[in-house]
Amino acid sequence: MESTKKYNILKINGENKNMVEDIVVLEYPFTIFIDDEEIITLLCSPKSLKYLAIGFLYSEGFIEDYSVIDNIRIDEDEGRAYIRLKVGKTINEKLQRKRTIASSGGKGTAFYNVLDFLKSRKIVEPLNISIYETKKLMEIFSKSSDLFYATGGVHACAICNNNSIIYFEEDIGRHNALDKVLGKALVENMDLKDKLVLISGRISSEMLIKAVKRGITVIVSKSAPTSLAVHMARELNIVLIGFVRGEKMNIYSSFSSLKF
Amino acid sequence: MESTKKYNILKINGENKNMVEDIVVLEYPFTIFIDDEEIITLLCSPKSLKYLAIGFLYSEGFIEDYSVIDNIRIDEDEGRAYIRLKVGKTINEKLQRKRTIASSGGKGTAFYNVLDFLKSRKIVEPLNISIYETKKLMEIFSKSSDLFYATGGVHACAICNNNSIIYFEEDIGRHNALDKVLGKALVENMDLKDKLVLISGRISSEMLIKAVKRGITVIVSKSAPTSLAVHMARELNIVLIGFVRGEKMNIYSSFSSLKF
Repeated sequence: MESTKKYNILKINGENKNMVEDIVVLEYPFTIFIDDEEIITLLCSPKSLKYLAIGFLYSEGFIEDYSVIDNIRIDEDEGRAYIRLKVGKTINEKLQRKRTIASSGGKGTAFYNVLDFLKSRKIVEPLNISIYETKKLMEIFSKSSDLFYATGGVHACAICNNNSIIYFEEDIGRHNALDKVLGKALVENMDLKDKLVLISGRISSEMLIKAVKRGITVIVSKSAPTSLAVHMARELNIVLIGFVRGEKMNIYSSFSSLKF
Repeated sequence: MESTKKYNILKINGENKNMVEDIVVLEYPFTIFIDDEEIITLLCSPKSLKYLAIGFLYSEGFIEDYSVIDNIRIDEDEGRAYIRLKVGKTINEKLQRKRTIASSGGKGTAFYNVLDFLKSRKIVEPLNISIYETKKLMEIFSKSSDLFYATGGVHACAICNNNSIIYFEEDIGRHNALDKVLGKALVENMDLKDKLVLISGRISSEMLIKAVKRGITVIVSKSAPTSLAVHMARELNIVLIGFVRGEKMNIYSSFSSLKF
């Protein structure tokens, strides 16, 4: 399915006004069902929907591993994922409780439980990466986003090793883009301890938590981190790098892990 | 409370590396309680918290009017809002159901119910606004965001009449910034039918729905709309304007409502 849609719009430029065909980024409602129970409707870009479903369910704690899934069927026309769990498997019980206190756009008490959990997993040795490699990766990453250049309205995420991009995904939502690359890695059973994640948008605490839960130790963004993300990165000894633009970058944590 | 925090970070610029003090945008966990029940934890910027709480509760359908609230107490140090409803008032019953099917970052079936509801309220006559006024308002709006210039990490929203900004709010979250201005208007009982809303970030269907629920008929952004937002704007006869930058702008709907 296309990730954009064409509309006739009125373009104004000073005194000129013209009706022209323009490209708008698609916003696609995508509903996930597990064993016939409706879990959520995500508003997303209609690519890599299987990875989005798996990544979302893992990030939010509905499943603890890909192995619990018997099969997943995507109906693109209806915008639905139908997931069957293996016999005897159920979605996380605690999550059922969490869902009654969390609503869209925020977190319930579970947010604080996650923090406690992560503290127990402080990184002893983050991936070794150099400033030069980081800069080179961000250059490749920045050139990879066709959809952004077409519409100005998407976020991108990538999983990389020290010198190349392994997975690259785009979505209208920052969280969805990250869930897609992490979901793909989960489906393909990729070890992420020696990988880093590149993010086009801001790094909030929730973005950092998603990556850390999967074992990522280096997070690199073109944009700004929040205070809570910096705080957590320092607590957990994650390498957090922001504002990677041309020859410049800001390193927010784990300074000694970087090679120059 | 400050909306930023200072950290010593390592700044790289080509061959130069320096530890410098840098400003990072604050991400502040803010938990809303209604009559001792925990509703949600929002991750936000710690300004205008009362308006955020009220705006969020209205946007998400927990309350149908400000008049149901007896009092609201904000504890800034703890990051909490304690809300008491008037005797005999309860939070929306239907919402209780919705909360069991929606999780963070997306919507449940309720998303589609909102669409049905909005269709019954098609705008007959949107606010009359000129291209010139729109451009001027966006100029003032763009200059208003100190926090963005300090940290590069926030979104802004404003409610305006044809020639000036009435409310201006910033937040690390697009949704929070919009809930703050709409919440303030609700608290101050302002009629929004002859107002427009300015948004720094992307206009998704959810942003459009929040504004429309409060009677807004003109939505203007510096950034891109999504296909679903364009579709809804056309269905509802909302004026949707995007990419307002210098002399340029794109008009996506209700073309005949604009004066030149």
